[in-house]
Amino acid sequence: MTEHSPSQTAYEWIDQGGITAPRGWQAAGVSCGIRNSRRPDLALVLSDTPCAAAALFTTNAVTSAHIQYARPLLERNPTGMRAVVVNSGSANACTGAAGVEATATVARATEETLGLPTDSTFVMSTGVIGLPLPVEKIVPGIAQAAQELGPAGALNAARATMTTDIRPKQGAVRVALPGGGVCTIGGMAKGSGMIHPNMATMLCTLTTDATLSPELLRAALRHAADRSFHCISVDGDTSTNDTLLALANGQAGLPQISSLDTPDGQAFLAGLTALCQYLAREVARDGEGATRFVTIQVRGAASDTDAHRAAMTVARSPLVKTAIFGADPNWGRIVCALGYSEVALDPARLRLSFGEMQVFANGVPLAFDEQAAHKLLSEPDVLIDADLGLGSGSAVAWTCDFSYDYIKINAEYRS
Amino acid sequence: MTEHSPSQTAYEWIDQGGITAPRGWQAAGVSCGIRNSRRPDLALVLSDTPCAAAALFTTNAVTSAHIQYARPLLERNPTGMRAVVVNSGSANACTGAAGVEATATVARATEETLGLPTDSTFVMSTGVIGLPLPVEKIVPGIAQAAQELGPAGALNAARATMTTDIRPKQGAVRVALPGGGVCTIGGMAKGSGMIHPNMATMLCTLTTDATLSPELLRAALRHAADRSFHCISVDGDTSTNDTLLALANGQAGLPQISSLDTPDGQAFLAGLTALCQYLAREVARDGEGATRFVTIQVRGAASDTDAHRAAMTVARSPLVKTAIFGADPNWGRIVCALGYSEVALDPARLRLSFGEMQVFANGVPLAFDEQAAHKLLSEPDVLIDADLGLGSGSAVAWTCDFSYDYIKINAEYRS
Repeated sequence: MTEHSPSQTAYEWIDQGGITAPRGWQAAGVSCGIRNSRRPDLALVLSDTPCAAAALFTTNAVTSAHIQYARPLLERNPTGMRAVVVNSGSANACTGAAGVEATATVARATEETLGLPTDSTFVMSTGVIGLPLPVEKIVPGIAQAAQELGPAGALNAARATMTTDIRPKQGAVRVALPGGGVCTIGGMAKGSGMIHPNMATMLCTLTTDATLSPELLRAALRHAADRSFHCISVDGDTSTNDTLLALANGQAGLPQISSLDTPDGQAFLAGLTALCQYLAREVARDGEGATRFVTIQVRGAASDTDAHRAAMTVARSPLVKTAIFGADPNWGRIVCALGYSEVALDPARLRLSFGEMQVFANGVPLAFDEQAAHKLLSEPDVLIDADLGLGSGSAVAWTCDFSYDYIKINAEYRS
Repeated sequence: MTEHSPSQTAYEWIDQGGITAPRGWQAAGVSCGIRNSRRPDLALVLSDTPCAAAALFTTNAVTSAHIQYARPLLERNPTGMRAVVVNSGSANACTGAAGVEATATVARATEETLGLPTDSTFVMSTGVIGLPLPVEKIVPGIAQAAQELGPAGALNAARATMTTDIRPKQGAVRVALPGGGVCTIGGMAKGSGMIHPNMATMLCTLTTDATLSPELLRAALRHAADRSFHCISVDGDTSTNDTLLALANGQAGLPQISSLDTPDGQAFLAGLTALCQYLAREVARDGEGATRFVTIQVRGAASDTDAHRAAMTVARSPLVKTAIFGADPNWGRIVCALGYSEVALDPARLRLSFGEMQVFANGVPLAFDEQAAHKLLSEPDVLIDADLGLGSGSAVAWTCDFSYDYIKINAEYRS
């Protein structure tokens, strides 16, 4: 984990940490045969005590059955969550009422296996749309996973949620609360394709031992998502399944955080946001077929909203992303994407750089060393910096390049 | 030319016709060395008499110098256009005031060479963004093209406007006006990449010998564009240069069309729209790296606007387009794209087909023959038919698949 935001003294990163870094959490990841291979495909996460829960879901009008099950669940029992089940291999989307029933069956089986109360299990699914959820494989898988639950299971759990992801994505931060005491936040995410989050993202589970109400947890989650998962795009496709879940079990034994405006609330928010940003960047970096990680920084916009929109438009442009795959300093495509992003823009005031190398200013191209620019764009990390020269709005977006492997992965996804 | 709309008796297609099919038009296409090869890169079009002119331009906030030159030109002289110059190899975008000056120089040189009045030449450019327009090559090229002008030059002119296009795109229709007499409309277009027209499209020149005012021509152009060029996407990138130009020289010697609501106006509009639809489909079919042409038909939407938005969202989805490249009947991605298109949608009412093969209805997948579906999607023409089941709104969008060659072409475009 090398990409920590600098010098935020309120939190520190936990080496190799994941969802079991906070107190009172166990996890496991097993293979139950959904994926017709020995790949892990089922994750189980358990809190020793009931949790306040909050979640953000996709804005897609077509939602996974797991989301249709989860929304009323969180209304019924916002403070009593104990377990999370995540399967890969089937998205359980476009599966109708039977799909919601299948999610309920998985939840019930989990509660029976672990001796938990009814309505204490949150289920998430990812994989191919339209396949029925293979309950007959998942239910025995839960029994198997229950045997393996433990504080060391975080990485296995993260692995079990992967689809076309190359790497598991997890992280954890320790937050020193100014009011005294230390709480911990852990997280795992999966992404890779169909990534253009709007409201929430792919599947991400965040655990903490802090004490917060579900309402405050939800507000914190939204703040963090707006600065992390809502700033990434792999392919512009907003999934049917995007889910960002946060669970707080209070096991750090600290006083309840009463507001995000208190020093403790601010510290918690800073830690949560940093963790979400780390996981979101990891999702973009591990986008399908990605060979380069691209940061698009937009400054000088008329507003933060404009800056976000402009940065995300560049992040989504196939022409920009293919040029970066070719390490081609074809800045005209970036100017073009900024131009159609529908934000306030005056080409005569625009300044554009690759890293420190300015390529466009005052409405005209600057002379630059093409070979040096090509070299800069051949690095694994690429920075595009656009100053619109209009105001003080700024935003960052993260994406990856568009390679042959994106086509290969998605032309052959189901075969 | 096999894709004519059926049974419109008001117009008929002219075999091999192009921009010189109407009376009083000549054209030429030559190589003047912009492209560092012997490829044709300069087209010249001439009307024997002054034309009423109308144009639609890109909505991109960053516009080519040729658009900055053309807007005031059309205001100054809406009924006196005589010539059109189109160059490939340089987009003359992001070139500042010098770019507009270069366009003016090309226009002046054309007027001097052909003995035309000032302000009678429309210039269009396409190619790489940010390169200065090589006036020193284009001006001699115009003299060369002037020597070759003739009624047989339409195809050469269409060829000279190509960039990554594989095939030249031209067409012509003959329209029998109910009021008596026949007029002709010809057109040529170039497209291929950076194609997601919004307002107008890539470069398209339409010529006619009908008699219309610039205002009526513009209204007709907008009607036709909304049903043609605004319905295609290759990659979701809206160019800085999109220009759709129509010129009417009245050489058919018919009475002026006074309104689009008259029988003559309706007949002209039908012919113009059919021609624009043909050219737009040709642009999508010849999209960068395309191996398949895809028609997305959306019916049963709450409104035509919703239907258009839904169809264009599917047309833009990299995941849908890569699945079609793989001939994979992965209909879940289509449902997903419809879902995030932000139109009124109820999955339980949605019906989805590939051609005649239904794959999804009433919120659940239907059993279908995967092999037969794969075969259907392996054809050069693919039809996706989505019935939203909500109302009477309908629209069609045209796109192509997303192949390795799209990546190759765009990763290496400038090298």
